[in-house]
Amino acid sequence: MLHRNSSLSPLLAPRSIALIGASENVARIGGRPLRYLREAGFKGAVYPVNPNRETVQGFKSYASVGVLPETPDVAILAVPSSGTIQALRECAERHVKAAIIFSAGFAETGDEGRAMQDEIAGIARESGMRVLGPNCLGVFNAATGYYGTFSAILDTEFVKPGPVAIISQSGAYGSHIAHLARQRGLGISHWITTGNECDIDVAEALQWVVGQPDTNVVIAYAEGIRNRDVFLEALDTARAKEKAIVFMKVGRSEVGAHAVSSHTAALAGSDAVFDAVFRQYGVYRARTTAEQLDVAYACSRGIYPAGDRLGIFTLSGGFGIQMADDAALAGLDVSPMPDAAQEELKAMLPYASPRNPVDATAQALTDLPLMTSYIRAMLEKGGYDMFAGIFGSGPASPTFAVSLRQALEGATAGQGGRILSLTMSASSEIVRSYEEKGFLVFEDGSALVNALGALAHFRKSFDAVKRATETLEEAPRLSLDGDTFSEYGAKSVLAKAGIAFPREALVRPDEDAGAAAATIGFPVVLKISSPDIAHKTEIGGVIVGVKDEDEARHAARTILDRVREKRPDALIEGLIVSPMITGGVETIAGVVRDPVFGPMVMFGLGGVFVEVLKDVTFRVAPFDRTEAHRMIREIRGFAMLEGVRGAPPADIDALAEMLSTLSRFAAANADMIESIDLNPVLVLPEGKGVALLDALLVLRKD
Amino acid sequence: MLHRNSSLSPLLAPRSIALIGASENVARIGGRPLRYLREAGFKGAVYPVNPNRETVQGFKSYASVGVLPETPDVAILAVPSSGTIQALRECAERHVKAAIIFSAGFAETGDEGRAMQDEIAGIARESGMRVLGPNCLGVFNAATGYYGTFSAILDTEFVKPGPVAIISQSGAYGSHIAHLARQRGLGISHWITTGNECDIDVAEALQWVVGQPDTNVVIAYAEGIRNRDVFLEALDTARAKEKAIVFMKVGRSEVGAHAVSSHTAALAGSDAVFDAVFRQYGVYRARTTAEQLDVAYACSRGIYPAGDRLGIFTLSGGFGIQMADDAALAGLDVSPMPDAAQEELKAMLPYASPRNPVDATAQALTDLPLMTSYIRAMLEKGGYDMFAGIFGSGPASPTFAVSLRQALEGATAGQGGRILSLTMSASSEIVRSYEEKGFLVFEDGSALVNALGALAHFRKSFDAVKRATETLEEAPRLSLDGDTFSEYGAKSVLAKAGIAFPREALVRPDEDAGAAAATIGFPVVLKISSPDIAHKTEIGGVIVGVKDEDEARHAARTILDRVREKRPDALIEGLIVSPMITGGVETIAGVVRDPVFGPMVMFGLGGVFVEVLKDVTFRVAPFDRTEAHRMIREIRGFAMLEGVRGAPPADIDALAEMLSTLSRFAAANADMIESIDLNPVLVLPEGKGVALLDALLVLRKD
Repeated sequence: MLHRNSSLSPLLAPRSIALIGASENVARIGGRPLRYLREAGFKGAVYPVNPNRETVQGFKSYASVGVLPETPDVAILAVPSSGTIQALRECAERHVKAAIIFSAGFAETGDEGRAMQDEIAGIARESGMRVLGPNCLGVFNAATGYYGTFSAILDTEFVKPGPVAIISQSGAYGSHIAHLARQRGLGISHWITTGNECDIDVAEALQWVVGQPDTNVVIAYAEGIRNRDVFLEALDTARAKEKAIVFMKVGRSEVGAHAVSSHTAALAGSDAVFDAVFRQYGVYRARTTAEQLDVAYACSRGIYPAGDRLGIFTLSGGFGIQMADDAALAGLDVSPMPDAAQEELKAMLPYASPRNPVDATAQALTDLPLMTSYIRAMLEKGGYDMFAGIFGSGPASPTFAVSLRQALEGATAGQGGRILSLTMSASSEIVRSYEEKGFLVFEDGSALVNALGALAHFRKSFDAVKRATETLEEAPRLSLDGDTFSEYGAKSVLAKAGIAFPREALVRPDEDAGAAAATIGFPVVLKISSPDIAHKTEIGGVIVGVKDEDEARHAARTILDRVREKRPDALIEGLIVSPMITGGVETIAGVVRDPVFGPMVMFGLGGVFVEVLKDVTFRVAPFDRTEAHRMIREIRGFAMLEGVRGAPPADIDALAEMLSTLSRFAAANADMIESIDLNPVLVLPEGKGVALLDALLVLRKD
Repeated sequence: MLHRNSSLSPLLAPRSIALIGASENVARIGGRPLRYLREAGFKGAVYPVNPNRETVQGFKSYASVGVLPETPDVAILAVPSSGTIQALRECAERHVKAAIIFSAGFAETGDEGRAMQDEIAGIARESGMRVLGPNCLGVFNAATGYYGTFSAILDTEFVKPGPVAIISQSGAYGSHIAHLARQRGLGISHWITTGNECDIDVAEALQWVVGQPDTNVVIAYAEGIRNRDVFLEALDTARAKEKAIVFMKVGRSEVGAHAVSSHTAALAGSDAVFDAVFRQYGVYRARTTAEQLDVAYACSRGIYPAGDRLGIFTLSGGFGIQMADDAALAGLDVSPMPDAAQEELKAMLPYASPRNPVDATAQALTDLPLMTSYIRAMLEKGGYDMFAGIFGSGPASPTFAVSLRQALEGATAGQGGRILSLTMSASSEIVRSYEEKGFLVFEDGSALVNALGALAHFRKSFDAVKRATETLEEAPRLSLDGDTFSEYGAKSVLAKAGIAFPREALVRPDEDAGAAAATIGFPVVLKISSPDIAHKTEIGGVIVGVKDEDEARHAARTILDRVREKRPDALIEGLIVSPMITGGVETIAGVVRDPVFGPMVMFGLGGVFVEVLKDVTFRVAPFDRTEAHRMIREIRGFAMLEGVRGAPPADIDALAEMLSTLSRFAAANADMIESIDLNPVLVLPEGKGVALLDALLVLRKD
């Protein structure tokens, strides 16, 4: 079989295309792609397959794939579901490299359809032929005129080639956003809809697309992800190559997730986990379609700001204030102009307010050369990474648009390293004229600032990869005696992986708990240790604050009596004697297995924080300490770890180290681990490390 | 003087207008309004005042206001700032009822301008003439052709009359949103810009507008509010009359608030307080201009859903899921169709997914009569308060738009009580054709659902007023001996207002603390009571867990010794002996004085919740228990009060009662109170009330 990545090229950049079920009628699924290929002037060979005709839409028609003069790179199947398997087999026999299946009527319709889809997947696997769909809208590549799709949005107009790739599980969503992108004047490189994903999924399409030099940004839509490894690899590649991914992942809500599970065959996974993966890999998760388009538009030039300082220029105070508010929300820095520069601007326009937002008042519009000098001074002295100018409907007048554009060009000449952006309410023709001069143009100021925040976000994410120096060592594999672990057993296993627990002793039921406690040092805690008892406190299996040997002996007897009474079935390993550690900040950590992403490390503040506020965060395992630091800082109650109410700062470094070690262990044993709970994890004052007071390790059943 | 409210009618609905500084040049500030009045066919009298001309733009011109044939209702001053005061005096002498001042160059420019503006305000006050501006863009009333403005957005086109009023402190913002509203096809009733607000402010304009029968919804913009009482009265009136207010209040962020203070003379107040006021009075606070317009559009018909159940109809699964996600965010209920109805729909379209979102698949489009029956069944059986149909660019084709519209009309006929909404990407002509049939039409699904959420929000807010039965009794006035209070003194004052504290004793330094403690019942807490000591713990002025009489005597001596050593200057009233109350949920409550809204009651969870998460909320005093319940439920950690970790539910009724009582006391003594701190307030289990363990009362200095 071909290498997976390169194997998508016949599908996405074919030299020859067969259209099976080609139709003369351009309104039909079998006619539309032929019309598009013809009108867009596709340079390669096009072979309609239709046994009933001599020609189709002016192309010579063939009776079957078998009789084509050459083996096509891709075959487009515009046949009903009932004829699909037969047609696909013929393609496989002819060694066609890739096939696109338009027809619906497969897994989405029930068991019978699912069986047919499985058969298609089997043909793909056995023949090495790659299959897109079924139930998809196909693909296109605007630059080569390759329109392997029947999407109706191309009825009126083709798209222009450009830096934006679109990958969508949903054909309708893909069509809609391509339509919006075209309206916005954005050029599209590749457009891929994956439908039922019996072979090629969004992850693999993404991986291919981020390797294409003509793509700067990817607009992606998915309801779930099938191939976790390829997906994460694609995200990694994108980040390393500085390609922005702007993702619409639906199924955030309970009702949405339920609808996903009935709509798609992909496992949805937990949405909180998706969210974490996007953060971890620097993917921008769009909340709305409008936002997705806005952010993709801002990224389309592949230029990112060096930092997050934003200079706002306005002719009306109100708009400037509104934009400053939005900037705070987007995490941008609207720091004031230096005092001396403010004085300089004051001298040019006495009634202006030159702090930042720099409000030149409407007066500036009456003297454009003055406005040019004013903005130039603002840019030269302000040191902003991004410039946003607010112009309203001023540029809407075609005559004024030209002089204003020249004034802005003059003001910003030689400021190429900066992101230059404007808001205006004008015709698309006028907007394009500003865009051609290097300005990002938005109608809405809030949308602009949000997109600038996204640019700063991508810059940080790209840079973080460049700076990363840590290599992740592989963790030891679990060696298993049984399938459940007592607390003591779990701790022993994790300790071998490098996770440090307080020194403690396991005392068998017939041994002297008093003597053992003395070696640990008082006060101590006594806990039952049994692989059968997960919730020790509930049956009185824990006694804290034990002060001397006698108390320890008495406590041991008490616990054993209680356990024997309440859980006579439980295998008793003995009692754990551990030092009584208090203080620090109570947190929790653990590992959960996500059906899509496998082992995810969870972290949160303990007690009411997790119970009331669900203040937890996740990361795909494994990850390094730097990523662990980012993870820890995502918690809403993070200030607790920095020290509140006079408490000293907690040992965040030690916590990060522990979380990274835990993640490496979870990754190395992903096939075996169901879950790990470390609760509580006391984060002690700086330099004193973390104290893990309890551990629960559950193995996978399957 | 006239009654304030009716006194705006000459300004906003004049029968006669003088334009002082009228110009023949329609591009000038003095020419533009005349052109607009002329072209829009204003029915009243128009008197240009220009001593240098016989006629202006075909109107007879007058040398001065004094020689006009009648006293005009309103005078529009299109003269430079230097000539404004003289012109205004002439208007006052002629008893003109209202004046609009366009010119800038007043308070916004510094001390000299401020002095001129104060003089204008003085003329207004003395003469009873109402003044709009200075530095404003004026007003218009589309229905009567009254365009008292020089806003450039009217250069190309007037606006159509309709149910939306726009009130904006900023002329630029007001113009921009009027332009966007016009683009959206929205009709505008009144448009008022208030500028520097030397007399009439946004609050008063709002109050007038919500009294107009032709207005359903108000789009408002402000950087601050000057007249708190009028503002709150206007919000109250709006709610009672079911007029929606959609507010853009800028200055949320630190930088934004700083820019406000340099841009406007209004006190900005705390943004968190504004936010609370909006919540309390059911005002919808828009985060972006686009959202403000979307919500106002949805409200423009003045029809609100009976509940928050949303039925989603889609032809593509992906869009339905996305909308379900958005609905969860908007607080809407996307509950499934009844099982029997699902079966019925299944029978009509076997491959459809009729749960909710109801996904009819693209197949439905191929058989419109079937789609009509399908949607009709969905509406009749689903019991949804709102219907949202997702149609993408389908209706963009004019021929299909008609048949689809007829199909939808057929499906929704007789469903008038429901909110009917659609998403589509089509020309404004096609969109209007659907709107005329009663559909709300949005291009973006997320924007639609957010707006539907706003409709449900308004419905709840309007209904809450109708249901309100509680009358707020006036609280007693503070009687003051000194200007600072000890803890004991503060508690005594608050107790008179009906706020209950645990029974406690004040023991003078020479009295027997032991005996007093015995009457309270052990264990007790001893605390120093001194008007000079606010932070008792810091100097060792509190001892808890005192178990018997001897301990009490010893504790009393210890505290007194410590206080005498550390604060020899402090006046010592004695020691408070109070019962040692533990348990319950720790909360805090208090009163702060906002520079705009006066006494605001604050509530939050205590301890780390308030310190780390700043999880507090506010209400304008006074308010009833129902409002207090809403306030308590706004806290992110509210679940703490419902009982977590096996704790019993807390006495939320008692807490609400206490907060309402506190608010009445704060309102009755607003002129005297600087702040009140009740920390901690333990909310005990249901039926056991609240225990207020400490009180701090600080009076206003001025």
